[in-house]
Amino acid sequence: MKSAGTRYGTHRVIEPAGALPQAAWKVDNNLPIDPSEMLIDVEMLNIDAASFTQMKEAAGGSAEGVANLILDTVEKRGKQHNPVTGSGGMLVGRVREIGSAYDGPIQAKVGDSIATLVSLSLTPLKITRIKKVFMDRDQVEIEGHAILFSSGIGAKLPVDFPRDAALAALDVAGAPAQVYRLVRPGMNVGIIGTGKSGLLCAAAARKMLGNTGKLFGVVHIQSIADEVAKYGYFDEMVLADATSPVAVFEKMNALTGGSLLDVTINTTNVRGTEMSTVLSTRDGGIAYFFNMATSFTAATLGAEGAGKDVSLLMGNGYAPGHAEATLDLIRSDDKLMKLFGARYSS
Amino acid sequence: MKSAGTRYGTHRVIEPAGALPQAAWKVDNNLPIDPSEMLIDVEMLNIDAASFTQMKEAAGGSAEGVANLILDTVEKRGKQHNPVTGSGGMLVGRVREIGSAYDGPIQAKVGDSIATLVSLSLTPLKITRIKKVFMDRDQVEIEGHAILFSSGIGAKLPVDFPRDAALAALDVAGAPAQVYRLVRPGMNVGIIGTGKSGLLCAAAARKMLGNTGKLFGVVHIQSIADEVAKYGYFDEMVLADATSPVAVFEKMNALTGGSLLDVTINTTNVRGTEMSTVLSTRDGGIAYFFNMATSFTAATLGAEGAGKDVSLLMGNGYAPGHAEATLDLIRSDDKLMKLFGARYSS
Repeated sequence: MKSAGTRYGTHRVIEPAGALPQAAWKVDNNLPIDPSEMLIDVEMLNIDAASFTQMKEAAGGSAEGVANLILDTVEKRGKQHNPVTGSGGMLVGRVREIGSAYDGPIQAKVGDSIATLVSLSLTPLKITRIKKVFMDRDQVEIEGHAILFSSGIGAKLPVDFPRDAALAALDVAGAPAQVYRLVRPGMNVGIIGTGKSGLLCAAAARKMLGNTGKLFGVVHIQSIADEVAKYGYFDEMVLADATSPVAVFEKMNALTGGSLLDVTINTTNVRGTEMSTVLSTRDGGIAYFFNMATSFTAATLGAEGAGKDVSLLMGNGYAPGHAEATLDLIRSDDKLMKLFGARYSS
Repeated sequence: MKSAGTRYGTHRVIEPAGALPQAAWKVDNNLPIDPSEMLIDVEMLNIDAASFTQMKEAAGGSAEGVANLILDTVEKRGKQHNPVTGSGGMLVGRVREIGSAYDGPIQAKVGDSIATLVSLSLTPLKITRIKKVFMDRDQVEIEGHAILFSSGIGAKLPVDFPRDAALAALDVAGAPAQVYRLVRPGMNVGIIGTGKSGLLCAAAARKMLGNTGKLFGVVHIQSIADEVAKYGYFDEMVLADATSPVAVFEKMNALTGGSLLDVTINTTNVRGTEMSTVLSTRDGGIAYFFNMATSFTAATLGAEGAGKDVSLLMGNGYAPGHAEATLDLIRSDDKLMKLFGARYSS
């Protein structure tokens, strides 16, 4: 019988001892695989938005610079675990080998295309070559291999989606899945940030609200607000900078007649947006953080400092059935199909 | 009318512009006060456990070294906001002046002893002199002043508690108050870390459980386990290192016959304990983080990586009535009264 440790990949942790692969500074990305593992020939990485934004800035907008940062991280850590943001992303590739003792949740044969649904921040990865960095969509085409543990979730790629569109959707599948759980008819709901996960959350929230409640979207650029409004999810677009909490609060306070939001979902990818989320939420409401640049102390001490009785939920990227639920959400909406198809076809 | 910004103290933020005081790198700690503020002559700081532990280590265990770190932080930032841990603490002192436009929640007159219930990480503070660092109880006796905004919560000191005991209890008042909300009869509940906030959480959980359910305490030193067991809150003490998630999981799995915990509360003060909390919790359960050394990415990506469908709650230090509830909890239990009285009388 496999030990719990092997299921979770502790046998690949180089340092520190006793850690799980996500918390580890460095993991072993070498072959051969353990009998409990699955080996993937990787084709494309989908980098977490906060991580990609950080690397783009650090590289002064150069694709080659981003490529070098990725090579450097994977060389040092054995995984694409951004040391600044702490976040990862996901990958797609083809199954090369399945260990004899692999008993994980992925039903796939050798040669099948799959997407991982666990973070790159814990996935042993070796890169032979970076073929292309897609600067406008946080994706990186590579040659190399990745290793999945028996505990690692993943999904066969759907046949009705372009590969890279599926990858982009699955990377943020946790967010809309959690929105389905949190939003109830009649609620005031706010979504701060309207990138790909923000739009999926908005679509999910709209489905839950139907014609009831009110859905607000916070963005800081008029042209994006105009673009996003066309999707028809939002009752109202709010033009404000999410790093200016008092400005966001004042607008939300005015728009809701002082009752504020029942649920506020942060899907931005920049630092310093915790308190615009907290202050926009009513006492007794829920602030939900899907932004990987969220600071635990900024959220908790900020909420306490403002005397806000708000539940502070960290966005767990996993919920049962989240992959299928998110793909179905996109399938159900031509505008989302078009957005993902258009943005992510190579 | 005061603007929302002034209520929250944005007028004292030096950098970055637009931030709230907690998120600010530096705040203005100078006099005179704004009409919306309250001025406190500070007597004692109660430093957050994660922050104090970090400073003690950085200073090699020297009280003078800790004092110098505090003086340096307050000089640079205008507040005791530990730049490494991001956390603060609380203070007690006497009201020196109440601004003509102060309309905050603290009902006190000039000369009254009060404790702040907002973090030192957002409280403008000036230190004239450090009189004594209490290395065994995370407290620092000082001379200086602090400034409270109208949004800042606080409480008059109770007459039946030694001052420093009240300060220590009020600093962690949010934790047991949240436990009252989360724990229901019949649950399996785990508390990782049994320092002062851990013991208060255990007492609160026991009250909610009564004779039902099971309460587990995780500590890594036998002598502490023996000491803590005497309080009678726990059904079982579990000897394990919270930074070794697989070890904690395996013990909890065995003790609960595989059903794991409904609610797991992390009250440790060290890094790397996120996943012992997550793995110990059943799918659908709640992992509650009161530890200020919690990493947002470690918790969220770790939970996803392990395919754990667990609600990840950040410990909000504020809940309505939390100060009185926590003092009442201590009052109701001679052992807690003795513990706080004995440890914190000077």
